[in-house]
Amino acid sequence: MLETGKKYYTFADNGEGLELDCGSRLGPVTLAYETYGELSAAHDNAILILHAFTGDSHVASHPGLQGEAALPGWWETMVGPGKAIDTEKYFVICSNILGSCMGSTGPCSLNPATNAPYGLDFPLVTIADMVRAQKQLIDHLQIRRLVAVIGGSVGGMQALQWCLSYPQMVRAAIPLATTMRHSAQAIAFNEIARQAIMADPNWNNGRYGAKPPELGLAVARMIGHVTYLSDEAMRRKFGRRLQDRHDFSFHFESDFQVESYLRHQGSKFVRRFDANSLLYLTKAADYFDLTGSDEGSIVGLAGADIRFLVISFTSDWLYPTYQSREMVHALKREGLDVSFCEIEADCGHDAFLLENERLKNMVRGFLAGVSKNG
Amino acid sequence: MLETGKKYYTFADNGEGLELDCGSRLGPVTLAYETYGELSAAHDNAILILHAFTGDSHVASHPGLQGEAALPGWWETMVGPGKAIDTEKYFVICSNILGSCMGSTGPCSLNPATNAPYGLDFPLVTIADMVRAQKQLIDHLQIRRLVAVIGGSVGGMQALQWCLSYPQMVRAAIPLATTMRHSAQAIAFNEIARQAIMADPNWNNGRYGAKPPELGLAVARMIGHVTYLSDEAMRRKFGRRLQDRHDFSFHFESDFQVESYLRHQGSKFVRRFDANSLLYLTKAADYFDLTGSDEGSIVGLAGADIRFLVISFTSDWLYPTYQSREMVHALKREGLDVSFCEIEADCGHDAFLLENERLKNMVRGFLAGVSKNG
Repeated sequence: MLETGKKYYTFADNGEGLELDCGSRLGPVTLAYETYGELSAAHDNAILILHAFTGDSHVASHPGLQGEAALPGWWETMVGPGKAIDTEKYFVICSNILGSCMGSTGPCSLNPATNAPYGLDFPLVTIADMVRAQKQLIDHLQIRRLVAVIGGSVGGMQALQWCLSYPQMVRAAIPLATTMRHSAQAIAFNEIARQAIMADPNWNNGRYGAKPPELGLAVARMIGHVTYLSDEAMRRKFGRRLQDRHDFSFHFESDFQVESYLRHQGSKFVRRFDANSLLYLTKAADYFDLTGSDEGSIVGLAGADIRFLVISFTSDWLYPTYQSREMVHALKREGLDVSFCEIEADCGHDAFLLENERLKNMVRGFLAGVSKNG
Repeated sequence: MLETGKKYYTFADNGEGLELDCGSRLGPVTLAYETYGELSAAHDNAILILHAFTGDSHVASHPGLQGEAALPGWWETMVGPGKAIDTEKYFVICSNILGSCMGSTGPCSLNPATNAPYGLDFPLVTIADMVRAQKQLIDHLQIRRLVAVIGGSVGGMQALQWCLSYPQMVRAAIPLATTMRHSAQAIAFNEIARQAIMADPNWNNGRYGAKPPELGLAVARMIGHVTYLSDEAMRRKFGRRLQDRHDFSFHFESDFQVESYLRHQGSKFVRRFDANSLLYLTKAADYFDLTGSDEGSIVGLAGADIRFLVISFTSDWLYPTYQSREMVHALKREGLDVSFCEIEADCGHDAFLLENERLKNMVRGFLAGVSKNG
């Protein structure tokens, strides 16, 4: 029995489409999503988890299901029965983002106008557009207010955007390892990843069919991957150790373990992810900026009844702690209730995905406080 | 009148060739080099400056010459009459490194065995091989002992290697913004740059003739370029400012200034640098490791009569200050005379190339001390 745990919700199929920030309309839109636990009779125990760049709806394994559904999810350490995000208490929802390729509508979906994949005819979607689509799903599930929106990295951007777009629907938000505006350095790495994909002749202006730009996409992933780690973590994990050899090759083979590891990460990634989707999602992150003309402020949140727990990690150099501090100051300036925690971790940006007792305790405690005051 | 200021010295042309770390022999070998100031009668005022990755012998302009020779060099701020490295006092030599493409023998040179460019038949050269070739040039110039070897980044590696390979020929060394062993993270970025080049079908296993892998090389350069800057510098220089537009393109054009800047850096670089050379030079840096089995020690320097000035820069995340500190500790453990200075600078690894009063004063003072005790 092959169960995936995935469900699908299709909307904006009445010909009108979902209105997007770029001015286009997109329809129909399908979101792949998974749910965990039971929705209470009052529909008041739902938590929405937002995934990062290349993630999917499979945030955790589904107890009692077989096959893919039983495989560990990307936040297995945090989500499940009795865990920090306790699926015995909360109804947890995680949906694949708009523009992705893991079940939701994106550039590799069929364009109903042509019956071929959208490719670059897919409209450029923003973080706010992703949240707009998620709102349709939450409405469909008849949830009027979420206990919390929680996400790391690009998922954290969505969590923040939820608070701005639909403040009445959010009681609490936990943005982790994220930023309120994408920095020049983060844009630079994304742009290089895009250039690597677009330099691959197989990319063919986005029309690659069965012959995707695998080499370019692998290079793009390697760039991303290094930004998710840290100097310390790489030093500890690989150092200068050689891979299956006692001396240098004196050629351009993989000499070092870190080289083999990166090549492996690159080739693994091209089997599961779509090159055009990576272009779209990186651009959405680059466009993300909640600040107003005064760079230190977030406009439009004043008076919102939302509690925040902002979490950063010491060795995250993609979205460094100073960017979380700026976020905290901006939220406090709007009079909001904000807790902030910088967690000691040497494993870089990826720290939010890894087992961490402090992270578990922070999130568990914060959610308990939110539920109590509900 | 078109003067370049470049001279050439060819050696290892007797059929034997220069012996390399990989076990091969290479010959003939030509080094392009430039000199500044006058060699004293006693031949005791020479300083050797070692350039970084993609640099060349043109460290400064040549007073009195015309054309290219009069153009500013890559360390114009530091080298010249009356400057910190004073060409009125010192005879300054800078030679293009072995494996490069700026006049010295490298993979784009003609292989005498085939009369075609070496391509990947060029042997893999190490930092020690580069220094071995420089030693031939210094012998040729009849200099028995250098006042100082000075270099930043890969040039700093060469400066350190000089002290190990030919300790009797060096009175002082100034390694700047460098490391005694290439870290996993630095190897990772180099490997991604190499993969970007080798993913370009025009690379053609190193045989590209007049159709070089420009797209791959441009991506490689963009990666390198970001590692030479810093988060702070990019924030200050570009922030999230848009390029020639008032709103987002909602497409994959350059929206942000930082994107245009990177694309420009990439395309500028492919006009001046050879893709195979970049492969060889990055690999040489990756192989660089002066430490013994005990990772914190430098083997073979004990008792050397060399004074060191080690300089790092606060925002350099390619060769961070902690790596300079490790170097200082290792040198001190060998009983050597070491001064260390971490210079406050927010412009990243490139800081060593930029105008900096503190850097000038440190180098000037240190060289004066070395000369006095000569």
